[in-house]
Amino acid sequence: MNCSIDDLSITNIRLLAIDAVENANSGHPGMPMGAAPMAYVLWTKVMNYNPKHPNWINRDRFVLSAGHGSMLLYSLLHLSKMDLSIEDLKKFRRLYSKTPGHPEYGHTTGVEATTGPLGQGLSMAVGMAMGERYMAAKFNKEELELINHYTYAICGDGDLMEGVAQEASSLAGHLKLGKLIVLYDSNNISLDGGTELSYTENVEKKYEAMGWEVFTVEDGNNLDAIEQKLKEAKKNESKPSLIIVKTTIGYGSPNKGGKSASHGSPLGKAEMELVKKNYNWNHEPFFVDSRVEKNFEDYIALNEQKEQKWQEVLKEYQVRYPNESRLLEKIHTQPIDIDNSILPIFEENTYTSTREASEKILNAFASNMSLIGGSADLSSSNRTYLANKGDFHPNNYSGQNIHFGVREFSMGSILNGLALYGGLRPYGATFLVFSDYMRPAIRLSALMNQPVTYIFTHDSIHYGEDGPTHQPIEHIPSLRLIPNLLVFRPADANESVEVYKSAFSQTNRPSAIILSRQDLPVITPPPGLDNKVKKGGYVFQPESREEIDVVLIATGSEVTLADNVRHRLEADGVSVRIVSMPCLELFNEQDQAYKDQIIPPAVHNRVILELAAPYGWDSVKGERGINIGIDSFAASAPGNDLVKEFGFTEEAISNKIQEYLKRNLKELSI
Amino acid sequence: MNCSIDDLSITNIRLLAIDAVENANSGHPGMPMGAAPMAYVLWTKVMNYNPKHPNWINRDRFVLSAGHGSMLLYSLLHLSKMDLSIEDLKKFRRLYSKTPGHPEYGHTTGVEATTGPLGQGLSMAVGMAMGERYMAAKFNKEELELINHYTYAICGDGDLMEGVAQEASSLAGHLKLGKLIVLYDSNNISLDGGTELSYTENVEKKYEAMGWEVFTVEDGNNLDAIEQKLKEAKKNESKPSLIIVKTTIGYGSPNKGGKSASHGSPLGKAEMELVKKNYNWNHEPFFVDSRVEKNFEDYIALNEQKEQKWQEVLKEYQVRYPNESRLLEKIHTQPIDIDNSILPIFEENTYTSTREASEKILNAFASNMSLIGGSADLSSSNRTYLANKGDFHPNNYSGQNIHFGVREFSMGSILNGLALYGGLRPYGATFLVFSDYMRPAIRLSALMNQPVTYIFTHDSIHYGEDGPTHQPIEHIPSLRLIPNLLVFRPADANESVEVYKSAFSQTNRPSAIILSRQDLPVITPPPGLDNKVKKGGYVFQPESREEIDVVLIATGSEVTLADNVRHRLEADGVSVRIVSMPCLELFNEQDQAYKDQIIPPAVHNRVILELAAPYGWDSVKGERGINIGIDSFAASAPGNDLVKEFGFTEEAISNKIQEYLKRNLKELSI
Repeated sequence: MNCSIDDLSITNIRLLAIDAVENANSGHPGMPMGAAPMAYVLWTKVMNYNPKHPNWINRDRFVLSAGHGSMLLYSLLHLSKMDLSIEDLKKFRRLYSKTPGHPEYGHTTGVEATTGPLGQGLSMAVGMAMGERYMAAKFNKEELELINHYTYAICGDGDLMEGVAQEASSLAGHLKLGKLIVLYDSNNISLDGGTELSYTENVEKKYEAMGWEVFTVEDGNNLDAIEQKLKEAKKNESKPSLIIVKTTIGYGSPNKGGKSASHGSPLGKAEMELVKKNYNWNHEPFFVDSRVEKNFEDYIALNEQKEQKWQEVLKEYQVRYPNESRLLEKIHTQPIDIDNSILPIFEENTYTSTREASEKILNAFASNMSLIGGSADLSSSNRTYLANKGDFHPNNYSGQNIHFGVREFSMGSILNGLALYGGLRPYGATFLVFSDYMRPAIRLSALMNQPVTYIFTHDSIHYGEDGPTHQPIEHIPSLRLIPNLLVFRPADANESVEVYKSAFSQTNRPSAIILSRQDLPVITPPPGLDNKVKKGGYVFQPESREEIDVVLIATGSEVTLADNVRHRLEADGVSVRIVSMPCLELFNEQDQAYKDQIIPPAVHNRVILELAAPYGWDSVKGERGINIGIDSFAASAPGNDLVKEFGFTEEAISNKIQEYLKRNLKELSI
Repeated sequence: MNCSIDDLSITNIRLLAIDAVENANSGHPGMPMGAAPMAYVLWTKVMNYNPKHPNWINRDRFVLSAGHGSMLLYSLLHLSKMDLSIEDLKKFRRLYSKTPGHPEYGHTTGVEATTGPLGQGLSMAVGMAMGERYMAAKFNKEELELINHYTYAICGDGDLMEGVAQEASSLAGHLKLGKLIVLYDSNNISLDGGTELSYTENVEKKYEAMGWEVFTVEDGNNLDAIEQKLKEAKKNESKPSLIIVKTTIGYGSPNKGGKSASHGSPLGKAEMELVKKNYNWNHEPFFVDSRVEKNFEDYIALNEQKEQKWQEVLKEYQVRYPNESRLLEKIHTQPIDIDNSILPIFEENTYTSTREASEKILNAFASNMSLIGGSADLSSSNRTYLANKGDFHPNNYSGQNIHFGVREFSMGSILNGLALYGGLRPYGATFLVFSDYMRPAIRLSALMNQPVTYIFTHDSIHYGEDGPTHQPIEHIPSLRLIPNLLVFRPADANESVEVYKSAFSQTNRPSAIILSRQDLPVITPPPGLDNKVKKGGYVFQPESREEIDVVLIATGSEVTLADNVRHRLEADGVSVRIVSMPCLELFNEQDQAYKDQIIPPAVHNRVILELAAPYGWDSVKGERGINIGIDSFAASAPGNDLVKEFGFTEEAISNKIQEYLKRNLKELSI
């Protein structure tokens, strides 16, 4: 190994990183300074990654889980001659630059995942490694391996302290993800000081206990050792690998190295000078040494060849397996097929819970191999099992059913990793109340524009006896608050079909599909070509005479309730229009004409009926509308008793609406 | 050991549990059937717990982390002659009974924590064990140990898979909580089937790696072995203990035992008959054998004596340490002192971030030993460190500063455990955006009526360069959605003082205090006896002439912005009233007269200004009000650039309000 050019390259990476932090007067210099050697060795000597073709499907994946060290990644991307110029580095942390404070998927070519919220990067890497195993199992032939890449991550102490990473690590060991290799930048420093303050477990032994192979590199600047351990880790294909690399945070900074002072703030002018002196670096900021440039050109050339060799394999594959080739192409370039002819139809006036309907719908879609997912140990309750599609398991990585275990948060992160992987439409399920456990992952799906499908069943106090710990109250509106997330709540089984069609049609945002535990009557007609759900809301039942006295807007199980209430109100001479609103976000996106057609502006009497916290409906409520919902924790009791107690019966709702109409009339006439 | 009466007692516990599940036609029979022996041994032979005085402060704590096994606990409480009759057991899972589906703190005497959401029970037990160490360090004298009890938990596979439990376990090992003993009901079955589906790690080795002592009982029906391991575990006071007890779920059920079929559904009539035959139990449902009754009476008598002995110690303590005794009494019976004279005063027109103000305020309160807390590795950013109060650490359990590590969710659960422990006012901090990581714990604080204080800093896009992964958008409204949680967002340093006074005055609900990263001018007068914050909202700046053209309602940093906007509007002849609304929940609780005084009903022009998702303000917005907020993810850039980009400048807001006023005027005159 030519140490001098390697050392020079590493120094250049370090300097680019800290120059950018200094120039931005904001950022995290310590991590890139400590972890530059491992990242350099990984990128230039181990990874199969062609910087000229960052979408190569068999590329090794790299996730910088310690996302605050973003400048380490940006330096590598720049030196690899990817779409990131020195000017971009100078705009580090500036508005709409390609170099945001944390790596953001979609903003910067070469960033495989948005990281920064600790623990989630590593967990997404687990998802990507699962994606590789799945694709390999689906497409590889005994004599022709098309998919066989590795997934790498660099993580820090903070990542490993997070529960989500521990969940994902446990599952990765269970699943024997041998092509997952995690470099642990072990610098014993976190924001508050030394890890002795809060983190003293035996990481090596812990990871071994979770089924990982663990290596240690005592000196994070020993390039040979890093390379050797990486190669050893690659050899073990039956266990994921953790390489503990002992480093010094802010390595090379005489006064801040090894201290939390170098973690989250620029080093400052005076210290920068000392650092440069220390590195024998007499250059202006953002300097790139021509020898380093040449070094990276060599690495790029080598990796182009690597891909070239793979392209030859692909060509042979295309000749020998044309059907599989077309399928591979299709799943990577086209949205999921929506074929009405294979979707279930539910007969009107029969009864089925929307979770059961969902099971039938998912199974109808399951012939599409992109569909992969499961539940956090509730598949029999969430009804998410794909019959005859097998379990994703070390003995059968082609299984489409993932058993996530009771690990909601990492399930969300893994779904994100699978979606980012490409060609897949992952879904995951739990009870609606436990959407809270995975909320940070849902937020990342939305931020990264990933069309993950979240399935949340047991969607109201109809859940019943398990009590307030298990009954969602605030969860529907709190999910609606997450930007760029579609929240669907179908009224019945047929509307559920339309909901899935809408959700699966999305290509750049996640969906949450919220389903009932209890049986509901089938009240909507069989789904057809005209998907009413895709507009978010529609007139479910028109008014009985020309004038509309009140528009009743409902979602999910409350559409049936609203319709029953309508009968009572009509008996009293009130003209009611029922609007089913399975997706408020989609409705809000429609043009004003459509919205006015569904909820006429002249009708001020509007009642929104949803068995959830009554917030977030401003856009359709108008000036004089009201919400009827539930705003407190409920209790443990049979669902029907709860519904009575909390005023969600036909009678109670009818009375409330009558009172409301009287009040509105009176006030308007004053 | 007299096996026959023990076995009989255990059989009776099992039968009471499954009778109640059968009677409710809902519940989880399998767990109580498998775990009854360990629970019985723990309660009757190991624990120091006087059923006649369940509030004894030195009682051993017991948390049923596997909360779905609630009937196991209820059976024990009934047999221990606590306030839970056979009639109560017959009302299992019925509305407002003392026997809800999952154990709920406050509903049932003897339930130490609300459990059911998996992983959190064990984590709360860690908090309780920390509470014990803290109280012991504060009160014990070398020759007089007042506080020296144990904390026990029973958990299942599902608990241990959850990340929150792994975080808490790691911290428990780090903190050497030797008086924490966890019984792991290892039955290898979870809802979806065998644990081989998703959970195959070496739990023993993993817990050893985290600094625990691990014991195994191979036969969960071997009472001697259970008792012996419990006693060994008690001896090791420098490490928490995990006792892996191998059990059979649904033990005794010929067709459902050892299967997930016995997990979450009643056994059914036919199987019940077989179970009873198997147990040689020929009794009506809910039968209690008189020998079992007598057995429990003996145990109660023994435990009364145990407490009696402790009461003698207390008496001696009271004589020798009257000050400490009074303090101990006080913290358990009185709310925290609010002494204005020790609280900081901030000079008007100086600048300070509310997180810095919070640091001074917390430190002013810190002389109260009830105040214990810390941050999830962000104390230097959240500004939560209590100077001179020491770190809570194995060498110094009297320290009031807890280093939670990067473990937000378990921090929340541990805070709950500390609050449930009694006598403490725990607080915990992280960035507002990461409130999502701990949301399920916040919900449990609210459900359990625990006055935990959550401190969330970096409260808007003013956060700046770290980008959208770190910038809260939806978090303020989503916290407001949690029932029974007070959400405070002070306008400046002086209002922060009032906010803490209000939050610390709460005795039965949690508070979230939301603070700025950036400096804010001090715009409110020094806090005095008249705490305006306690009413939630008040007139910060009255209108300039009698008629009010618009009421501007703002929170946090936007109060200053609103006031600056006022100057512009007034220059254009618009009369503006500024309302500061640091706590919407408290404002909503005021009587109508007060609310009308602050926001006059006649004024329909209302603008709510908050740099957050603009939802949840229906109660004050009126019919024609508007929100000005932010509804999308932002970007990585300096805070000031973001504020400009997203329209939160004086000019942009003034223009928006002017347009709004014109629009409203036009519409009203139509």
